Amino acid sequence: MPGDQSVDPVVDPAADLGLLSPGRAGSDVEAATGDSALPQALLDAEAALTRALGAPADVRARLADAARADRFDARGLALRARPGGNLVIPLVADLSAAVGAETAAWVHRGATSQDILDTALMLVAARARQLILADLDAAADTLAVLAARHRATPMPGRTLTQHAVPTTFGLKAAGWRSLLLDARDRLAAVALPAQLGGAAGTLAALGGDPDLLDRYAAETGLVAPALPWHVLRTPVADLGAALALTGGALGKIAADVLLLTRTETAELAEGSGGGSSAMPHKANPVRATLIAAAARQLPALAAVLFGSLAAEDERPAGAWHAEWQPLREALRLAGGAARDARELLAGLQVSEHRMRAHLDLTEGLIVSERLVAAFTPHLGAAEARRLLTRAASAAAAEGLPLEDALAEQPQLNGALDLAQLRELLDPTHYLGAAPELTDRALRRQRKP
Amino acid sequence: MPGDQSVDPVVDPAADLGLLSPGRAGSDVEAATGDSALPQALLDAEAALTRALGAPADVRARLADAARADRFDARGLALRARPGGNLVIPLVADLSAAVGAETAAWVHRGATSQDILDTALMLVAARARQLILADLDAAADTLAVLAARHRATPMPGRTLTQHAVPTTFGLKAAGWRSLLLDARDRLAAVALPAQLGGAAGTLAALGGDPDLLDRYAAETGLVAPALPWHVLRTPVADLGAALALTGGALGKIAADVLLLTRTETAELAEGSGGGSSAMPHKANPVRATLIAAAARQLPALAAVLFGSLAAEDERPAGAWHAEWQPLREALRLAGGAARDARELLAGLQVSEHRMRAHLDLTEGLIVSERLVAAFTPHLGAAEARRLLTRAASAAAAEGLPLEDALAEQPQLNGALDLAQLRELLDPTHYLGAAPELTDRALRRQRKP
Amino acid sequence: MPGDQSVDPVVDPAADLGLLSPGRAGSDVEAATGDSALPQALLDAEAALTRALGAPADVRARLADAARADRFDARGLALRARPGGNLVIPLVADLSAAVGAETAAWVHRGATSQDILDTALMLVAARARQLILADLDAAADTLAVLAARHRATPMPGRTLTQHAVPTTFGLKAAGWRSLLLDARDRLAAVALPAQLGGAAGTLAALGGDPDLLDRYAAETGLVAPALPWHVLRTPVADLGAALALTGGALGKIAADVLLLTRTETAELAEGSGGGSSAMPHKANPVRATLIAAAARQLPALAAVLFGSLAAEDERPAGAWHAEWQPLREALRLAGGAARDARELLAGLQVSEHRMRAHLDLTEGLIVSERLVAAFTPHLGAAEARRLLTRAASAAAAEGLPLEDALAEQPQLNGALDLAQLRELLDPTHYLGAAPELTDRALRRQRKP
Amino acid sequence: MPGDQSVDPVVDPAADLGLLSPGRAGSDVEAATGDSALPQALLDAEAALTRALGAPADVRARLADAARADRFDARGLALRARPGGNLVIPLVADLSAAVGAETAAWVHRGATSQDILDTALMLVAARARQLILADLDAAADTLAVLAARHRATPMPGRTLTQHAVPTTFGLKAAGWRSLLLDARDRLAAVALPAQLGGAAGTLAALGGDPDLLDRYAAETGLVAPALPWHVLRTPVADLGAALALTGGALGKIAADVLLLTRTETAELAEGSGGGSSAMPHKANPVRATLIAAAARQLPALAAVLFGSLAAEDERPAGAWHAEWQPLREALRLAGGAARDARELLAGLQVSEHRMRAHLDLTEGLIVSERLVAAFTPHLGAAEARRLLTRAASAAAAEGLPLEDALAEQPQLNGALDLAQLRELLDPTHYLGAAPELTDRALRRQRKP
Repeated sequence: MPGDQSVDPVVDPAADLGLLSPGRAGSDVEAATGDSALPQALLDAEAALTRALGAPADVRARLADAARADRFDARGLALRARPGGNLVIPLVADLSAAVGAETAAWVHRGATSQDILDTALMLVAARARQLILADLDAAADTLAVLAARHRATPMPGRTLTQHAVPTTFGLKAAGWRSLLLDARDRLAAVALPAQLGGAAGTLAALGGDPDLLDRYAAETGLVAPALPWHVLRTPVADLGAALALTGGALGKIAADVLLLTRTETAELAEGSGGGSSAMPHKANPVRATLIAAAARQLPALAAVLFGSLAAEDERPAGAWHAEWQPLREALRLAGGAARDARELLAGLQVSEHRMRAHLDLTEGLIVSERLVAAFTPHLGAAEARRLLTRAASAAAAEGLPLEDALAEQPQLNGALDLAQLRELLDPTHYLGAAPELTDRALRRQRKP
Repeated sequence: MPGDQSVDPVVDPAADLGLLSPGRAGSDVEAATGDSALPQALLDAEAALTRALGAPADVRARLADAARADRFDARGLALRARPGGNLVIPLVADLSAAVGAETAAWVHRGATSQDILDTALMLVAARARQLILADLDAAADTLAVLAARHRATPMPGRTLTQHAVPTTFGLKAAGWRSLLLDARDRLAAVALPAQLGGAAGTLAALGGDPDLLDRYAAETGLVAPALPWHVLRTPVADLGAALALTGGALGKIAADVLLLTRTETAELAEGSGGGSSAMPHKANPVRATLIAAAARQLPALAAVLFGSLAAEDERPAGAWHAEWQPLREALRLAGGAARDARELLAGLQVSEHRMRAHLDLTEGLIVSERLVAAFTPHLGAAEARRLLTRAASAAAAEGLPLEDALAEQPQLNGALDLAQLRELLDPTHYLGAAPELTDRALRRQRKP
Repeated sequence: MPGDQSVDPVVDPAADLGLLSPGRAGSDVEAATGDSALPQALLDAEAALTRALGAPADVRARLADAARADRFDARGLALRARPGGNLVIPLVADLSAAVGAETAAWVHRGATSQDILDTALMLVAARARQLILADLDAAADTLAVLAARHRATPMPGRTLTQHAVPTTFGLKAAGWRSLLLDARDRLAAVALPAQLGGAAGTLAALGGDPDLLDRYAAETGLVAPALPWHVLRTPVADLGAALALTGGALGKIAADVLLLTRTETAELAEGSGGGSSAMPHKANPVRATLIAAAARQLPALAAVLFGSLAAEDERPAGAWHAEWQPLREALRLAGGAARDARELLAGLQVSEHRMRAHLDLTEGLIVSERLVAAFTPHLGAAEARRLLTRAASAAAAEGLPLEDALAEQPQLNGALDLAQLRELLDPTHYLGAAPELTDRALRRQRKP
Repeated sequence: MPGDQSVDPVVDPAADLGLLSPGRAGSDVEAATGDSALPQALLDAEAALTRALGAPADVRARLADAARADRFDARGLALRARPGGNLVIPLVADLSAAVGAETAAWVHRGATSQDILDTALMLVAARARQLILADLDAAADTLAVLAARHRATPMPGRTLTQHAVPTTFGLKAAGWRSLLLDARDRLAAVALPAQLGGAAGTLAALGGDPDLLDRYAAETGLVAPALPWHVLRTPVADLGAALALTGGALGKIAADVLLLTRTETAELAEGSGGGSSAMPHKANPVRATLIAAAARQLPALAAVLFGSLAAEDERPAGAWHAEWQPLREALRLAGGAARDARELLAGLQVSEHRMRAHLDLTEGLIVSERLVAAFTPHLGAAEARRLLTRAASAAAAEGLPLEDALAEQPQLNGALDLAQLRELLDPTHYLGAAPELTDRALRRQRKP
């Protein structure tokens, strides 16, 4: 039995064990996409084909018994994949050798390597997707709680790095959730089809019955394709796009967390920050960092997958082979980032106190827009805007509160009294529809 | 009136007039996305806001009269966009100056630049999309005709550059159509929302009523967003993904056309090939070339757009600005490629004669798979495969037809007679389910 | 004379006038790469070829007179470029028509379109490069001044968003300069060769003399290539890489400026910030924003150019065409970013006061590393580290200065007296080699 | 001793053993970049630091003894890397535990994780580079032989998929070599520096002596940096660019091989083609396919590395972490492709016979350019071109040789006699300077 005795238990020195990938190390998605899960999926695809072709019960039984990845030497398969350019050829050889000639006659019957490898990658993707969705959903649930809790918690809205007008942390969290739901809905909606077509996608060696596509898909648990999709790569491109969107959605959260965690700001903190090899006081936002790192890589991987759509002939020489590792890496990066986001959000520390304090940092400037609107009936829009620009400049230059700078502007005389002015200057009274928008966003549910 | 007299009618030397973009030059999508259409869309967005805010009829009328892009100096706006970093600021200034103070008080009321620019880009995208979809649909219709006509037209199936087993041109065309429908369905499904939120997305200066989002969207003809999406960039990422998929789908067609047009193959030809500056005999597949060029660029542009999802704060410093030109370029590349594909397919010349002739090029090897299957009951699978491998090698080495090389193999004695062997060797009798798969694929309609 | 009367002076509505590209609008590089400069470069290439081939003086004179881009209708060329797939074909037709039959016999003699277009793009790149280098060099000069001035200006060093240990602003500026010099040296070193080879790169219609490559290059002012490089695209890939590196180097500066400009930090400010359409107080770091936007796009464009290296045959069907617009856009993005960086740095406002104040923000934690080292002789490394970790936690939890938290740790008794401790806690006394490293970096000059 | 007993010898199921990467499986570069080589490089970096800091001989000896990667549990390190976000923290812990307290006091002294990881990655890159260069040089040597042998072997030059004019296979091979030399020269020239700076790059905990950079670099065998380059990422970007150029150069060769290997063309063949799981006759160009697959991925990885140049602060939160896996993957893809190219070229089969035969495929059209030039003195350039266009059309339409089609053109009467015409029509007499250009290119040597 290949693999039974011959597997060398020592890790090959060329192996990637995750040393450069802390974002996904130890995650369930990593295991679901590793070089144990992949051979299993290939074996599952072979076994499903045999069932779809109507093999007798004893053949099925022998195959089910043999088709266990732990009996195969994965590193050996990798090395023996070179001559033919893919690992299905040596796997079929080993599987055939393992089951005996009679059963071997059913193995890989009528199929081409791509049938099995594409199907296996879709099985791997389907299993990984479930794990990613679970983490995304848990993160979204946490965000729903955070958004509701902080729907009216005021904080500075920031645009182009500068305080703009107040917003609420609830609206920010609701926005994060909205983006996450976009990503999870798209990821959940990607159709992951089985692959079957034979040498050139005509089913010629498979009996020539298009319905076999449906039977085979049913045996695999995957979607039935309208056509063999050897060179119609929508499923892979869709996956790439959905994973890049997932990375971007999580990356938005990470970008905000990283900024709001900065020492000078510190409105947010990861529940348990990462230590440093040099500085005992450091509590680094490690999860947000690892998410940000994933978000930087996923668009490039998606671009490779989009590029492989232009797959020539009935099987391309390169475009298909270029999909394999980027697709797996995309699943792993998105999976790792989803796990980190779930953990990050579950432990996120929110400092309402510092958010509130920062609203006063510009001593009134954060509501300059509001004041223009308030003065416009008295001064006209243009003059109101000029007045505020002048006062804001003076406040900034002289380090004055805006209230004082405004008091020096003669035009204001009589327009508003001090109490009115102070009311206008209260940043917590200029939240607009932030709480209501939060509610509006929270009414959205994820797609079933 | 800004623009009325002051527009310098001479083209700015910095202009891009399409000299490096023959793929899109002169296309409707190019015009719909140019620097005339864009200011018009911005003005439409401003006017829609005024209506949504309930401006009186005379204000609306004055604005409708003034909000015509040909009255504005586009190049001047581009130059004056620099200090604030976007073109809305000078546009609002010009529009305000054009309409008089009373009306100006309604212009851009409560809005932020991003509200207007995002809305305008979605309007531009919506208009461009209609044009792209029309070309994709026309191309798909032509493909339906081609696929039906050639459902049983045999040709070599090619994998990894080599003849594999026969297929039909109809199945190839049906596959192209299937991919095009994937692209058009995804492109058609992208939600293009209006943008409104004010300075930090809270609607604070817009009255604080979330329902304004719906009213504004209705005025623009765009989709109503659940939230202001200043930093929730799903619409842009979705567009990028759908356009990259479109480019890839068209790129698959182009890749096949380019290969099948090669001088040695010549199974296909563009209806009217492109000339050469040097060689009078050349008839280049120019449309396929330009499509291929677009397909090479679109994934990278989509990657930029995916990258901008990680948009920090309430408006990012760079990620948003990095979307503008790539999004427009993506629309233009996809639009140009769709036009070229429509033209290419409408004029495509199919040489059934050369397709048939090429099936004989390997003198029987193209059905080696079939022979293995036929010999297996007599010889067992392994021996049948060994036999064919040996015969194929001999045929290739000695330049013999496979029939002759097989005749030299002693194992065959008695297994099959010559008539059976010749029947097996007829490539047109080994099309598998290609015609039926073509029919199956043609039953698919585009989504409404 | 083509162009004399027929040019329609009205801008085509499809034109790109820079509305979506404030980063490059109005820059010299924009003009040097626009659709006026490009036809001129094409005409220059044609004229140079005629000279290299030894055309008589009167032919040269007539060509020199005719070869002026303002006599040609650029938009018309763009439209007429479609049938052949590039603009050289109609340009040659117009130029030939303009000069009369006798001179026309010399026009484009023996050349292929790619000879002329590649040469023209290299001419455009060479001219743009000079402009970019001038801005980079000016920026680097400003940085040298800033670095020298602030070689010992203390500020917080920040890692993973958190205060780490002190550094100096001079070292930061010296690092920026070092990166800029890397970029400018690489950009300056890119060899920009003339292109000449004829239909398939053999010089067959050009007299078959390899030395013609050298004569032609001399006439163009470009580098002589070892071979025609129709499908040996190192020059374009090198340019793409150097421009992406330039974008990244400028992007590093922008990233730092954007962070240090944030309202809570405000250690830096752009000399004149950008205004807002909504908020009179805003002073946005617009230049840094536009640089950051360019830095996000350039890697993707470089990827397209790298991808075009795999150019099949003697001229590829798509890979070449896919280079044109990305190469121009890369020049424009880098050129705009270089201009913005020059302006930004020339006006950069540095708040030594706020830098100094922020060193105290963590009340001692910023020198925790130093304290571990100081306590190690007394306590051993492990215990010293544990002590500081404990004290840092206590300080953070109770809002105490680290000095006080340390005073509560019994192990410290006797190890250090208060004066020693206070000296150790002074962040301005823990700058390491920052000033000397600044000096070391400033000794580097740019390559000649 | 960590690792001595505790290492679990069973491969973790999450491991990447190369199943999806046949291009690099089993290559020396794969081993040099695997998760055994990496910890060794990290340990080498730690040991070098200790030496540079002047540790006593016994400390050095104990460290040299302990710093062997096979004593450490790589998978365990990967898992324990998560809390701090990089694997140096647990590695230092294990190393410290292994050597005893006295020696441990010297371990990692004054360093930051990035010092060690960057240095280790440069060590890995340096070792991998040597291997890649060896394969590139061997491939270039083979190409020099091929180019010299075939300097005058005529074959069709092909542009935009169509026969253009004749060229020679030697010129093609010389071009491939030229591109390879470009790549290897750039790769060889990348400066790979040691990294040292401490917590924020000031050397504060390292004694504050800039010369330590030089001593440390000398101990590692790497280049000394002008500055700590924690956020000055030129070395990584340069590596990415050189590897992408390498992939593109190899990808050009692969693209040509794939086309010239197509069943209809078959001018080239890989020495031993890859088999198929379905078709016994298939001899697939597997090496070219795997090279092409690598060439499709490398530009995207380079784009990620370029993107990480914009690294904020003194250590970025994400940009650095995003470099690790793409850098390794780029080394592996380029290394695998270089190995495949070396093998491919060593065994490349060149069919001079088929090249010659294909020159006649268009029955004279391939020299239409030459005929225009020959007729121009008799007919004028325009008329000569019109004549050829007409004759070429007639030849194509009626399936005539060009000679016959020309004979029907009345203008030719008297201009040329039949012997002259036949001489002109001989494609092997229209090679231009292809042999001489080959010689010119072969004079180039690689840089030392």
